[in-house]
Amino acid sequence: MNLPAEEVKRKLALACRILGTEGHDDLNLGHLSARTPDHRELMYMKGRGLCLSEIQPEDLVTIDFEYQKIDGSRNPHGELPIHIEIYKRRADVGCVVHTHPLHATAFSATGQTLRPVNNEGVMFANALPYFDLVTDLIVTPELGRSLAEKLGDAKAVFLKNHGIVVVGETIEEATVRAYLLEKTIKTLFVARVLGEPKWTEDEEAEQKSKRIFTGPKINAMWEALARQLEQREAPLRILKSLERRLAKKT
Amino acid sequence: MNLPAEEVKRKLALACRILGTEGHDDLNLGHLSARTPDHRELMYMKGRGLCLSEIQPEDLVTIDFEYQKIDGSRNPHGELPIHIEIYKRRADVGCVVHTHPLHATAFSATGQTLRPVNNEGVMFANALPYFDLVTDLIVTPELGRSLAEKLGDAKAVFLKNHGIVVVGETIEEATVRAYLLEKTIKTLFVARVLGEPKWTEDEEAEQKSKRIFTGPKINAMWEALARQLEQREAPLRILKSLERRLAKKT
Amino acid sequence: MNLPAEEVKRKLALACRILGTEGHDDLNLGHLSARTPDHRELMYMKGRGLCLSEIQPEDLVTIDFEYQKIDGSRNPHGELPIHIEIYKRRADVGCVVHTHPLHATAFSATGQTLRPVNNEGVMFANALPYFDLVTDLIVTPELGRSLAEKLGDAKAVFLKNHGIVVVGETIEEATVRAYLLEKTIKTLFVARVLGEPKWTEDEEAEQKSKRIFTGPKINAMWEALARQLEQREAPLRILKSLERRLAKKT
Amino acid sequence: MNLPAEEVKRKLALACRILGTEGHDDLNLGHLSARTPDHRELMYMKGRGLCLSEIQPEDLVTIDFEYQKIDGSRNPHGELPIHIEIYKRRADVGCVVHTHPLHATAFSATGQTLRPVNNEGVMFANALPYFDLVTDLIVTPELGRSLAEKLGDAKAVFLKNHGIVVVGETIEEATVRAYLLEKTIKTLFVARVLGEPKWTEDEEAEQKSKRIFTGPKINAMWEALARQLEQREAPLRILKSLERRLAKKT
Repeated sequence: MNLPAEEVKRKLALACRILGTEGHDDLNLGHLSARTPDHRELMYMKGRGLCLSEIQPEDLVTIDFEYQKIDGSRNPHGELPIHIEIYKRRADVGCVVHTHPLHATAFSATGQTLRPVNNEGVMFANALPYFDLVTDLIVTPELGRSLAEKLGDAKAVFLKNHGIVVVGETIEEATVRAYLLEKTIKTLFVARVLGEPKWTEDEEAEQKSKRIFTGPKINAMWEALARQLEQREAPLRILKSLERRLAKKT
Repeated sequence: MNLPAEEVKRKLALACRILGTEGHDDLNLGHLSARTPDHRELMYMKGRGLCLSEIQPEDLVTIDFEYQKIDGSRNPHGELPIHIEIYKRRADVGCVVHTHPLHATAFSATGQTLRPVNNEGVMFANALPYFDLVTDLIVTPELGRSLAEKLGDAKAVFLKNHGIVVVGETIEEATVRAYLLEKTIKTLFVARVLGEPKWTEDEEAEQKSKRIFTGPKINAMWEALARQLEQREAPLRILKSLERRLAKKT
Repeated sequence: MNLPAEEVKRKLALACRILGTEGHDDLNLGHLSARTPDHRELMYMKGRGLCLSEIQPEDLVTIDFEYQKIDGSRNPHGELPIHIEIYKRRADVGCVVHTHPLHATAFSATGQTLRPVNNEGVMFANALPYFDLVTDLIVTPELGRSLAEKLGDAKAVFLKNHGIVVVGETIEEATVRAYLLEKTIKTLFVARVLGEPKWTEDEEAEQKSKRIFTGPKINAMWEALARQLEQREAPLRILKSLERRLAKKT
Repeated sequence: MNLPAEEVKRKLALACRILGTEGHDDLNLGHLSARTPDHRELMYMKGRGLCLSEIQPEDLVTIDFEYQKIDGSRNPHGELPIHIEIYKRRADVGCVVHTHPLHATAFSATGQTLRPVNNEGVMFANALPYFDLVTDLIVTPELGRSLAEKLGDAKAVFLKNHGIVVVGETIEEATVRAYLLEKTIKTLFVARVLGEPKWTEDEEAEQKSKRIFTGPKINAMWEALARQLEQREAPLRILKSLERRLAKKT
């Protein structure tokens, strides 16, 4: 079963770098996790100290749901209760994203209900919950449970004056959702300046969401994000390889 | 007649990459089409699965106006009725753009009438129509016909909470128009924050538009967009070519 | 006297590329000019067809104040009356900039008086004039004279729903002024969202302006702009040179 | 004691380049300083003429608290009283940052009290002071003393229509604070458009601040900023090295 584990780690590291370079980087803060493929009481999680945009598979740690580190050279983030308590409560969730992107974090400060103004907005047509018990970090199992409870069956939750938590069945789904959540709020930001936004009503939003965000279409969006990441990463990778060659020749 | 067909495809792919890298990319969504040069009941259209910014001529598909794919390895986008129904209704249209750029999409959520605040605004001085029958995707011939009817004789139409459709006699014209539509709304966005915008009145706008947007001037703008694309594409192209050489030497 | 002429051309082309890559590019539109060093009834001006960011000395044309092209392979822009009529009226002006940067153009749509909210704002503490006779292009000597009259003794003038004209004794001064005018309006844009801006009052603004914007300090800012341009231009220049070598080896 | 001095200079130059490339560059304006490690009545300070983003250790000057230059080939900035008078008043301060980043400078024009809307906002939960005695440059010891007095025991002070001064015990702390001050105001900017921001109340902000901004965590953020700078600087460094080789071969 080694191969699937490597594949999940590779994909989770890719998801970290995609979101990190798409506006979710906040220095070394923010973290993603995914259930391990072989054991449902374990997760891989971004280790502490690096930016999301820097994560490679070896920077992940393996944690069990008793909060013990099983594997990995890095320390876990103090907010691991966010991940563990959501996995315990939501058997359908395979990946958890917690980040502080600019527009969604600013939105979390307004306490508003997000309503759809564009295509991706309909993904979040069922009003996303709002966690405001604390604005502080989620560093105890109790806070993690409160947050998981507030999340309920939703796809994401806003953390007041803090950021977002987004979940998905797969790494692909959670990543695409987190990307689109930030993007839809960016669109709302522009719309708010231009005039009074009109919403897509609930019924149409749900129908539209079913059409646009099927499993295969979300996977195609993930593939697009992965190719765009490669476009951003390739120049420095190639130049660094050139630099090593030039150094050898000296 | 092979050469012109290749030339149209090359130009359409270029238009996709220009708009994709000028703020019209929305993952793998959005699409452009152009009539084939030899047969007016056929169109080339961006195939499914790639970003606009990635399109090469071989990623285009050929579709007839009975909705049948004639050529091409990719699947067509589900929204092909937008293109076909507009071509059927507008003999003057040779190219159709459907994208979701940030500012124009946000504008589509406000239902406002676009009025000119800068030079390029006068291109759209005759109030652009607003399609709000649905906010969902345009996936049936019926919806395509409704949209084409709403477009009427205009250069573009806003799709509520969705995006824009822009048309032109040529690929150059439709591309420049789509680029300038997004840009003029970006200017309006800034003006709205700075104060109460004053419009250029209709009569002057029309006269100004005739002066700035003649055929040769639109072609010169297209050429500028094409050169700027080359500036953006060249670094990675050269580095990838270097990478292949370095790999061979190893 | 050949050398100084070459030096003025080199500097004017540099000014075009600086402003072009600092937010003043608007496809192939916008233009700069400078008086020739040897004859005060002649000017060098950006030729038609290229973006500001692309201009090299050989893309300039030489025009006399009777509107005749004396030298250069390109056509002049239709708006040359802006330049000629200002030079005729203002013996102190050695360089004229006409561009459409985003924030300043948006500001021109509001008809407001610009007041200083930051350091560079004080450069424009004496209220800049506002030209709203037409919003159309300035393509006749009459319109050029009206604009030059409206400019009066000021450093710059807003053209309603069109853009800005900025002048300076030297290329360095006009370029730095145009750069800072856009920048100060960008700051105002942000301030307008954050709250109600407080202005620096006229007397203090004038004193502050004399301290910050002396000739040597403006030259030092020009040098900073020129070095930053080199940072932006160097990668592609080096890569293109590499590409030529790789091509030769094949 | 040579080595520590070199290390402080290297770190101060790095801090200049980090902030310069993170939105604090304003042409050749803005400056950072740090106390020398061996003598508390001396400071290293960015010399005049370069952008923050260009600073290398050899561009620093050494100044004593009697305003005399002790070492260095460049001239000091005229605003050195900001630095000297703060060091004289605040024995705990080891590094002073004075810059004009876009959002914080715009905020300085509003005279508002900054309140926390996101994680980094809590770092500045104790209302930052506002200096509005003058908006002009701080070029006399008297003005420097007034500013230092207004700063009091705070981490930073807004200079009306001018910019910010941020202090820290170490270079790392002052740099991270300056970076986060600009970032938190950027978040506030977006929140202001999206709706009415809710603040994190003082008590929770203080507790949250103690959790997030411990010494080790601030150092980890500094390390992240340093690695991200290397990502931005590496391409041109490698290409310039390639250019030198290509030139030699010709």
